[in-house]
Amino acid sequence: MADDFWRTELSFVARSKILVRGYRIEDLMERCSFGDVVYLMFAGELPKGNEGKLIEAILVSSVDHSLAAPSIDAARFVASCGVPMQAAVASGVNALGDIHGGAIEQCAKMFQEALAAHPGVEHAEVARRVVQQYRQAKQRILGYGHPIHNPDPRTLKMLELAERLHLIGPNTSLALALEGAIKEGFGRELPLNVDGAIAALISDLGIDWRLGKGFFIIARTVGLVAHSHEQMTKERPFKAAAASDIVYNGPPERDLPAAFA
Amino acid sequence: MADDFWRTELSFVARSKILVRGYRIEDLMERCSFGDVVYLMFAGELPKGNEGKLIEAILVSSVDHSLAAPSIDAARFVASCGVPMQAAVASGVNALGDIHGGAIEQCAKMFQEALAAHPGVEHAEVARRVVQQYRQAKQRILGYGHPIHNPDPRTLKMLELAERLHLIGPNTSLALALEGAIKEGFGRELPLNVDGAIAALISDLGIDWRLGKGFFIIARTVGLVAHSHEQMTKERPFKAAAASDIVYNGPPERDLPAAFA
Amino acid sequence: MADDFWRTELSFVARSKILVRGYRIEDLMERCSFGDVVYLMFAGELPKGNEGKLIEAILVSSVDHSLAAPSIDAARFVASCGVPMQAAVASGVNALGDIHGGAIEQCAKMFQEALAAHPGVEHAEVARRVVQQYRQAKQRILGYGHPIHNPDPRTLKMLELAERLHLIGPNTSLALALEGAIKEGFGRELPLNVDGAIAALISDLGIDWRLGKGFFIIARTVGLVAHSHEQMTKERPFKAAAASDIVYNGPPERDLPAAFA
Amino acid sequence: MADDFWRTELSFVARSKILVRGYRIEDLMERCSFGDVVYLMFAGELPKGNEGKLIEAILVSSVDHSLAAPSIDAARFVASCGVPMQAAVASGVNALGDIHGGAIEQCAKMFQEALAAHPGVEHAEVARRVVQQYRQAKQRILGYGHPIHNPDPRTLKMLELAERLHLIGPNTSLALALEGAIKEGFGRELPLNVDGAIAALISDLGIDWRLGKGFFIIARTVGLVAHSHEQMTKERPFKAAAASDIVYNGPPERDLPAAFA
Repeated sequence: MADDFWRTELSFVARSKILVRGYRIEDLMERCSFGDVVYLMFAGELPKGNEGKLIEAILVSSVDHSLAAPSIDAARFVASCGVPMQAAVASGVNALGDIHGGAIEQCAKMFQEALAAHPGVEHAEVARRVVQQYRQAKQRILGYGHPIHNPDPRTLKMLELAERLHLIGPNTSLALALEGAIKEGFGRELPLNVDGAIAALISDLGIDWRLGKGFFIIARTVGLVAHSHEQMTKERPFKAAAASDIVYNGPPERDLPAAFA
Repeated sequence: MADDFWRTELSFVARSKILVRGYRIEDLMERCSFGDVVYLMFAGELPKGNEGKLIEAILVSSVDHSLAAPSIDAARFVASCGVPMQAAVASGVNALGDIHGGAIEQCAKMFQEALAAHPGVEHAEVARRVVQQYRQAKQRILGYGHPIHNPDPRTLKMLELAERLHLIGPNTSLALALEGAIKEGFGRELPLNVDGAIAALISDLGIDWRLGKGFFIIARTVGLVAHSHEQMTKERPFKAAAASDIVYNGPPERDLPAAFA
Repeated sequence: MADDFWRTELSFVARSKILVRGYRIEDLMERCSFGDVVYLMFAGELPKGNEGKLIEAILVSSVDHSLAAPSIDAARFVASCGVPMQAAVASGVNALGDIHGGAIEQCAKMFQEALAAHPGVEHAEVARRVVQQYRQAKQRILGYGHPIHNPDPRTLKMLELAERLHLIGPNTSLALALEGAIKEGFGRELPLNVDGAIAALISDLGIDWRLGKGFFIIARTVGLVAHSHEQMTKERPFKAAAASDIVYNGPPERDLPAAFA
Repeated sequence: MADDFWRTELSFVARSKILVRGYRIEDLMERCSFGDVVYLMFAGELPKGNEGKLIEAILVSSVDHSLAAPSIDAARFVASCGVPMQAAVASGVNALGDIHGGAIEQCAKMFQEALAAHPGVEHAEVARRVVQQYRQAKQRILGYGHPIHNPDPRTLKMLELAERLHLIGPNTSLALALEGAIKEGFGRELPLNVDGAIAALISDLGIDWRLGKGFFIIARTVGLVAHSHEQMTKERPFKAAAASDIVYNGPPERDLPAAFA
């Protein structure tokens, strides 16, 4: 087997020693918040300022959104079937796809690439070019607008905290400029939503856009665990649609074709 | 690394060669049904008689049970979230727990152990002892009774086919004797259900009870794939309970406690 | 709640009745092979000819590929952790992504779209245009070539059977024409591989390309169940890389930065 | 459909409003740590003291244990297959079973039940009775001893912090008394391990033992995200055992039996 079949930069384990990015686990437990350590794992180094605080606020914003989320609904069905908790949680995690948290990834990519492609250009102008580019490609800009939260209390608070913690950077500036450019270009008032705000803020924290969905996965796991537990301890087993509630729109009852009869 | 870190009896792969339990994959494709090969994988040898046919009937019996199954409901929620098909299917597979197909495993264990514990005893008598033992332990006997299928067309057909294919053995004989013993001991008419019938028949096929759930997993994967596809191609994305349909029975809106204010 | 929240064309369940695409489950169990029923679920109707037989051969071809597949490796790690079988299988199913079975989907799409875009054109010419188009877009054509199976015994047998069963149609004809066009256009001998052959054959069966991966998921579930069982019954629990086999290439042990000390 | 099909105490969603256990999400983001909110979700109320701090240390202790954990190995195989991040993470979550984090659940149950069964009895005596009971049942006591961490730096730090934060209660006292009773009863020096320490501490925080594994799931999700990202961005796709590294111990190549030939 190749000598480097198992290889990682993330952590090291030996007898009575666990290092995360080189730091002893007991030192991290003593001195760092969970948000600091998420930053360490994702960005490679411990925060130089208030990054850990902002990450904790981001995580808190997304711990739960009740049963109005497919991931939670899926997890509760699974949790009702006599399975260990992790199986229910895993099923919910699987649901965190392109249209359920996945916008964070794509939106962070958009911010990071737009800034890289237009160095030194004013953000209002970059925003106009981004909107023009998406209009020409007939693509939707992700991260703006929400079916029920308008405004979204999570977005407002996140931006307020980032401002106070001195963590607003060019990505967030561009994200806010895009609100205006979208209104101008698409004629619709679509405020930055929670996915877009997280995307902008983690981009300003210097985190790879491919990790964007990771924040949502970690946060919503709290909800998935709590909902699975609630389902297992307070609700009936075998949660399923009643046969009488299902609309069947296939062929009516029929005999097998002659070839099979 | 230990020399036997990767080890299996199931199959062998080399340049332009794939062996399953020693047989060349192209020979199996040419001469064997899917049911034969499932038997080969699970029992270790190809069938000597009609085992493959019975396994196909067992699999067909369980391909789908509409949205009245938590696994399918879970898969459809996940399938609506912009994920690749396998993620939706995997979430549904996770739901196939102790009370959603899992009875096959436990029931096959019960049959196999009861026969092993009472060699040479008449099956009606073994059945009485099993019922007595479960009554004393205040445990439910799995594999009997069904909330909506009474009788279950799948069970009847499966037993009829097994009879015709000469595949009824002591486990199925015991399973049927238990219907009477349950009526006598618990005072309830609980016919052998589809889980119980599969459990009895695969036990007579000589298959380890730990593989019982495996038949259900393989079969229902067909339904999981088809429902995921139907969800992705014919239904709206982001299937979730509407906020207005959710009953919230937690604390009313409130301010943070003084310590946090 | 909307009246059609739960809706399907696939199957219907009522008291002692289960219909799949309108057919009674007991009739399907009596008269149809597993392959017939997979076809029914995926294509909407029972086969008119030998389609079920070919589907069984396709499924048999893909039941297992030993531990040389990431899905099986993943399932065995999970199976070693004290989990129910379905959790291990689900983890393996999750691995069946774009580069592990996923080529079937993309390749079937390519065949179906190329034929639709060039009606009445000779297949050798369609093949040349497809190669040209992919070369210009600098994209790889999926479904051709294999790291270790060259030729692939599964592909050869599948095509031979399809020929004998009179199930070769325009998609497979195009798929074979592409072998020559690829050699001409890319200068490499890349024979149709097992993913490509399945893609072509199911396209000729009239199945939506989006269901392509579904065949692989169903087939490999057999291997996932058998490997999980083997891991659980014959191997040590907690299968994991030994700490001493892991190459750590992150920062060396270090103290926390001054800000945290 | 039943009016309470979708029901929860955990959170509430309406237009521009999200409540978690009654608290406005923006208030929680402003004033509470992630640890506080995990406590709120799991215990039902915000902490009265330092509980959030201890929970953060518990979470930090378990974010990663390198590739020496089956969950991480499984996730990396899946992450190499062209799947979205959540599919890889979900596969790893599935591995967090009875012998990979699951001891927290069982161990917390043991502490909570032992104290409830022996009110007013000195903890050293309760510990002796527990050991006696497990010896008679020939069961292993979970939560003590570790294959490579002896002592475990995570356990020591966790207990030290709990002491300093005034969060040591009867469960932890019993957990420590059990170290002595185990030595006396089983004749082996088995110090409280990280699972056992978490189990004791969360029991003293008043959290239901069924949520024990939840802390580990949330924490390790950080590692699962980071390892999936590392695999996707820094390692070769299709990570799998090489065919030449697999030991095959099944039947040698053979022809089909006569019945199939």
